[in-house]
Amino acid sequence: MGESICGLKRTHYCTEVTVNDVGKEVTVMGWVQRRRDLGKLIFVSLRDRSGIIQVVFSDETKKEIFEKAEKIRSEFVLAIRGKVVKRADDAINPDMITGEIEIWAEELRILSTAETPPMYIEENLQVNEALRLKYRYLDLRRPDMQRNIMLRHRVAKVARDYFDANGFLEIETPMLTKSTPEGARDYLVPSRVHPGKLYALPQSPQLFKQLLMAAGFDRYFQIVKCFRDEDLRADRQPEFTQIDLEMSFVDVEDVIKINEGFIKKLFKEVLDVEVNCPFERMSYKEAMERFGTDKPDTRFGLELVDLSHIVKDCGFRVFSDAVKNGGSVRAINAKGCGGKFSRKEIDALGEYVKNYNAKGMAWIVVEEDGLKSPITKFLNEEEIRAILEKVHAEPGDLICFVADKDKIVFSALGELRLEIARKLNLVNDKEFKFLWITEFPLFEYDEEEERYVAKHHPFTAPMDEDIKYIETEPEKVRSKAYDLVLNGNEIGGGSVRIHDQELQKTMFKCLGFTEEEAKERFGFLLEAFKYGTPPHGGIAFGLDRLAMLMAGCSSIRDVIAFPKVQNASCLMTNAPDVVDEKQLEELHVKFDIKDIDNQQ
Amino acid sequence: MGESICGLKRTHYCTEVTVNDVGKEVTVMGWVQRRRDLGKLIFVSLRDRSGIIQVVFSDETKKEIFEKAEKIRSEFVLAIRGKVVKRADDAINPDMITGEIEIWAEELRILSTAETPPMYIEENLQVNEALRLKYRYLDLRRPDMQRNIMLRHRVAKVARDYFDANGFLEIETPMLTKSTPEGARDYLVPSRVHPGKLYALPQSPQLFKQLLMAAGFDRYFQIVKCFRDEDLRADRQPEFTQIDLEMSFVDVEDVIKINEGFIKKLFKEVLDVEVNCPFERMSYKEAMERFGTDKPDTRFGLELVDLSHIVKDCGFRVFSDAVKNGGSVRAINAKGCGGKFSRKEIDALGEYVKNYNAKGMAWIVVEEDGLKSPITKFLNEEEIRAILEKVHAEPGDLICFVADKDKIVFSALGELRLEIARKLNLVNDKEFKFLWITEFPLFEYDEEEERYVAKHHPFTAPMDEDIKYIETEPEKVRSKAYDLVLNGNEIGGGSVRIHDQELQKTMFKCLGFTEEEAKERFGFLLEAFKYGTPPHGGIAFGLDRLAMLMAGCSSIRDVIAFPKVQNASCLMTNAPDVVDEKQLEELHVKFDIKDIDNQQ
Repeated sequence: MGESICGLKRTHYCTEVTVNDVGKEVTVMGWVQRRRDLGKLIFVSLRDRSGIIQVVFSDETKKEIFEKAEKIRSEFVLAIRGKVVKRADDAINPDMITGEIEIWAEELRILSTAETPPMYIEENLQVNEALRLKYRYLDLRRPDMQRNIMLRHRVAKVARDYFDANGFLEIETPMLTKSTPEGARDYLVPSRVHPGKLYALPQSPQLFKQLLMAAGFDRYFQIVKCFRDEDLRADRQPEFTQIDLEMSFVDVEDVIKINEGFIKKLFKEVLDVEVNCPFERMSYKEAMERFGTDKPDTRFGLELVDLSHIVKDCGFRVFSDAVKNGGSVRAINAKGCGGKFSRKEIDALGEYVKNYNAKGMAWIVVEEDGLKSPITKFLNEEEIRAILEKVHAEPGDLICFVADKDKIVFSALGELRLEIARKLNLVNDKEFKFLWITEFPLFEYDEEEERYVAKHHPFTAPMDEDIKYIETEPEKVRSKAYDLVLNGNEIGGGSVRIHDQELQKTMFKCLGFTEEEAKERFGFLLEAFKYGTPPHGGIAFGLDRLAMLMAGCSSIRDVIAFPKVQNASCLMTNAPDVVDEKQLEELHVKFDIKDIDNQQ
Repeated sequence: MGESICGLKRTHYCTEVTVNDVGKEVTVMGWVQRRRDLGKLIFVSLRDRSGIIQVVFSDETKKEIFEKAEKIRSEFVLAIRGKVVKRADDAINPDMITGEIEIWAEELRILSTAETPPMYIEENLQVNEALRLKYRYLDLRRPDMQRNIMLRHRVAKVARDYFDANGFLEIETPMLTKSTPEGARDYLVPSRVHPGKLYALPQSPQLFKQLLMAAGFDRYFQIVKCFRDEDLRADRQPEFTQIDLEMSFVDVEDVIKINEGFIKKLFKEVLDVEVNCPFERMSYKEAMERFGTDKPDTRFGLELVDLSHIVKDCGFRVFSDAVKNGGSVRAINAKGCGGKFSRKEIDALGEYVKNYNAKGMAWIVVEEDGLKSPITKFLNEEEIRAILEKVHAEPGDLICFVADKDKIVFSALGELRLEIARKLNLVNDKEFKFLWITEFPLFEYDEEEERYVAKHHPFTAPMDEDIKYIETEPEKVRSKAYDLVLNGNEIGGGSVRIHDQELQKTMFKCLGFTEEEAKERFGFLLEAFKYGTPPHGGIAFGLDRLAMLMAGCSSIRDVIAFPKVQNASCLMTNAPDVVDEKQLEELHVKFDIKDIDNQQ
């Protein structure tokens, strides 16, 4: 049975004890990292969230305490009172914060015993993630996970301090709310009191934060759980956390400025990294043409080059047809890779772009004494010279071409660019490069639904100078939306919203909603906007991803205390699970068993 | 169509403009509280979240601006640039913060027009709450609601600052988790990926915060949404917010101390009220005997007096039988009410206690020249003298008696005490009286289930000196649980937990769980506790109720931006609602329609 701490007070976290405490009596409490029993000497490394300190039991320790110490095993929880002693010079451990000292134990309580844990409690553990998640409470004891969770805490705290200091009010919005038919799939919650009706868990507090602006709160802020019932990819969780904010009486510049201030303060306070403001900006169009993506990693070059005008009439049908069919031919000059990459490696790049729906990759290797390429035979000399000039080719370069519809060209070359950068190790891991992407298209054409849909959401405002095109040439209209990109990751996005009822009605019309449909979907927001709505805009940051990038992790699961796995289940609690039949009866819910059986 | 703010920057919130700004040009933005059109002069009261300032349009205003000003109506949203002018002495309004000045408009933009709102936007509005909740975005514009939501923001911010400064880490726990069969009814969320299985929304992060202690985080804190699918009473919401915390290596005193520090700082920073520490403490037993409740309002007296030993053999069978059947006879001396209350009012008190299952109320009015009472005829002189002495009766007093099982006596007299205090106006609204209730019983006997159940939850630790009774006399065991009471409201509660596996097993045995059942219900916690668990304890405060009491409101709905009504629906969004059949199909969910039809 575990001993009580009654009468004993912890005086220090383990690594708070320093050489300045030598000679003093201290009391520390924590877990046994390691025990070394040398017969007449027992060394215990005691661990708490601050780190580790060494405790010694020796000849000088009272007999009954020494005997108790012999029972100690890994992960036992101890309280130790003792004297701080400077280690002998040859026993100093420069790798430990407390490496110059140790505690000579005078009192020992075993607060809890422990079975041998199913994994080691140590940094950079190489172990199956499923085991880590099943025993998450053990996994979280590891120093890297402790640091990640502490970093996440600091990110949230700095965010709250900054936005509070700038007049933002944290206002809670409902978790049990109404299903909105646009967007991703909702998680639904059956109502016991209203049988057959359901709540939805929010995908974001979008409508509520706009209502808070209509309510005159002026500046709203919230760190809030959001929910999407999507098929999970590596970086998705069914529940995720947003740093969400909205401001009244603002235009794009105001939102950008306040958020640059936030990021600057965040990186300084949490990582002691200086970020320069203002951040670079790039229009959506420029980002796509130069990097093939709206979230470019601009820490390195390898930009896309449009060669369409050069090859539009060339003899290589793959190229000329692509241009004639409204697509394009673009290339990346992989500087110096011509010599570096073997034919096999080049072919592998060709296979790689096929993952992004390209039919293949054409290439030219520039050598000192000529070109090596499967396609040059289809091009005339002038075309070849023009291409080489346009991509600034030099001996040793590898030029990679993709020809297709723009969408495929951008996606294939954008990904190829990242792949080449990885292969060439072009990325500086220590660099944080921020970039605003602006002037997104307001609409995009949904080929399946054969109508324009909102690129962001139906409340995003068009740019003032493009409003005139909204009914006639919707594809030309740019919006007041902006994304914040960090090292090729979208970490935040938002927009200035439509606050004018008439413009909102036009917008719904362009999206193909009848007035009736618009009312059914967004009725209470439209109703609210009748009674005086300020111009407003906002942004939401993905806290999980932001914390992940700041912690230098590659999975958001490493910055979430209790994450779910790809099939949306929790390996520790076994959620979701079956429930008592009585609980379902109260909700009037039945599961369609036949259907389920067929699936399983 | 609303004008744009392009080119215009707000320089001040309305009430930030002061006499020091006289002569300066300022730009303010907000809603029209009131417009007075005197023909050649138009006065507009412009409102933002800071308050109101007066704007003047006059002869000196440009003609086209004056004409635009004539179109202004209530709740229009305006941007106004103009000069700050000191008002003439006879025009100064001492009731307004900005009453000495006004802005002479030089530029006016109508950012948004407004229809006439369905309610007045003013303080202390007397209007149907259903209307307020349907148009919540308008209701929230009212200055009292703005203040409430701002106060709530400050409460949360101060909580985070305090606990962060004291080494607590805010760690998010899952919203989609596993149903736990103990406790209230869960809200359930069907899983699309695992048909037939469901998540539960958490009733509290209890298990997760204990796991975080097992994980070595030492001090955890979170402001977190919790969910209970209960039938709503006045002060309940389906989703509510807790200030939740847990600490390792602590006993009761440590938890109490850190939380007294929190409350002291909270009241100082938010209300500028000095709270004295340490708070008073009272055992559960004492609270019940003196006040009939475990959340006594100790701002006034009217304490309960036990008369059982005096009347146990008296001739009044209602009294003597109650004692003989194991119950008690207790009284409240309503000082000075004998003269004040009419016979009708006394009878009304008798009816009042019946709401709390008392069969009735006996009474004695003490007059200068004798007693008036329907029961004295059944008592002998000595009994009467002993009673009067025990309750310190003086002429003018009204003694109110209830005789029954203890549970009923306590509940009826506890409530009667509050009722009398209300009638006598004994309560000082400005006083904040804090009180810890400690030494709760560990178990209570559930007559329906015919077994002992945990008074708090099955992880609450027994008091060290009572552990010996746990298997033999469970009703004698007091726990390390504590509630914090403010003015008769429970605002927080918690306990030191069991961290010893053997004691936890004994506890489950006492609760009548087989090992198998315990494992099924709390398996992952029990598993976690095998690997070294520190002594730990914590508390959770109800943020909604705390904010309500601090704001001086009588309903938690007044400190929640978007609350639900008694039937758990939202009058603004109409949630919960029916969803597309396709959404239910994806979840394999069917509603039992016949059953529903029968209900409706």
